[in-house]
Amino acid sequence: MRILGLDPGLAATGWGVVMADGNRLRHGGHGTVKTPAAAPLAERLAALYDGLMGVMAEQALDEAAVEEVFVNANPQSTLKLGQARGVVLLAAGKGGLMVHEYATRAVKKALTGTGAAEKPQVQAMVERLLGGVKVSGADAADALAVAIAHAHLRTSIR
Amino acid sequence: MRILGLDPGLAATGWGVVMADGNRLRHGGHGTVKTPAAAPLAERLAALYDGLMGVMAEQALDEAAVEEVFVNANPQSTLKLGQARGVVLLAAGKGGLMVHEYATRAVKKALTGTGAAEKPQVQAMVERLLGGVKVSGADAADALAVAIAHAHLRTSIR
Repeated sequence: MRILGLDPGLAATGWGVVMADGNRLRHGGHGTVKTPAAAPLAERLAALYDGLMGVMAEQALDEAAVEEVFVNANPQSTLKLGQARGVVLLAAGKGGLMVHEYATRAVKKALTGTGAAEKPQVQAMVERLLGGVKVSGADAADALAVAIAHAHLRTSIR
Repeated sequence: MRILGLDPGLAATGWGVVMADGNRLRHGGHGTVKTPAAAPLAERLAALYDGLMGVMAEQALDEAAVEEVFVNANPQSTLKLGQARGVVLLAAGKGGLMVHEYATRAVKKALTGTGAAEKPQVQAMVERLLGGVKVSGADAADALAVAIAHAHLRTSIR
């Protein structure tokens, strides 16, 4: 089972691949798709879409996981994130992947045992659970975290 | 010059085509792409994307126009709209169209002379300016309105 975790954002979308074999997890790759800040919105969204389609073409993936959105207090930020997230979900669907959504607290809890964990603690657990891999970038670490959470939670009774 | 106007929404995205030849406008078609409310979000976004790609494949279009977003007081609505809007902008870009954005007030003003016009007044002007066509659906009417506004404003000094 190869799981693609995604952390959507217009400027940078993190992605991470986790291979789950029962309780065993392995790291399958991670990275960040960035879009040019100066480009028109439609072009940035196309760059994001094409980048993710490229990632999926290189990996034989089975399922995708993404965090539910923390709705920002700033409506313009929420709109921007929503636009990027729509394209990310579309790309995953077009890549043939079912997309599973998890609350941020559920992801943190699956990785650290507490839903109130701080980001560095989550990233440290991601690296430990994946056999000591060094993850470059907070977005990719978040993407790997939700992929790991999905690996744990999909086999549990929910 | 064939202009595609778009009024994005997750449940229903209105579209309308206006042919502009100098100051002359003609109606090129309109409709609504609807998505099944019960389907997972990624599937609804794919239905929206495919629907718009289908519309664009049937029409030889030159440019696209869309309203800037009125950011809703409800953050969940803003997120939902953002997700649909991201996919709509992506589809237009993938269809090879430059997307132009207009404030709602600018659209209303271009059609009725006042930025404070009510929706029925805007729809009535859309129908009159397009030679008496009957527009079915408020979303399609809004889409035609932004296409007409673009036809007027693109040739003006802004």
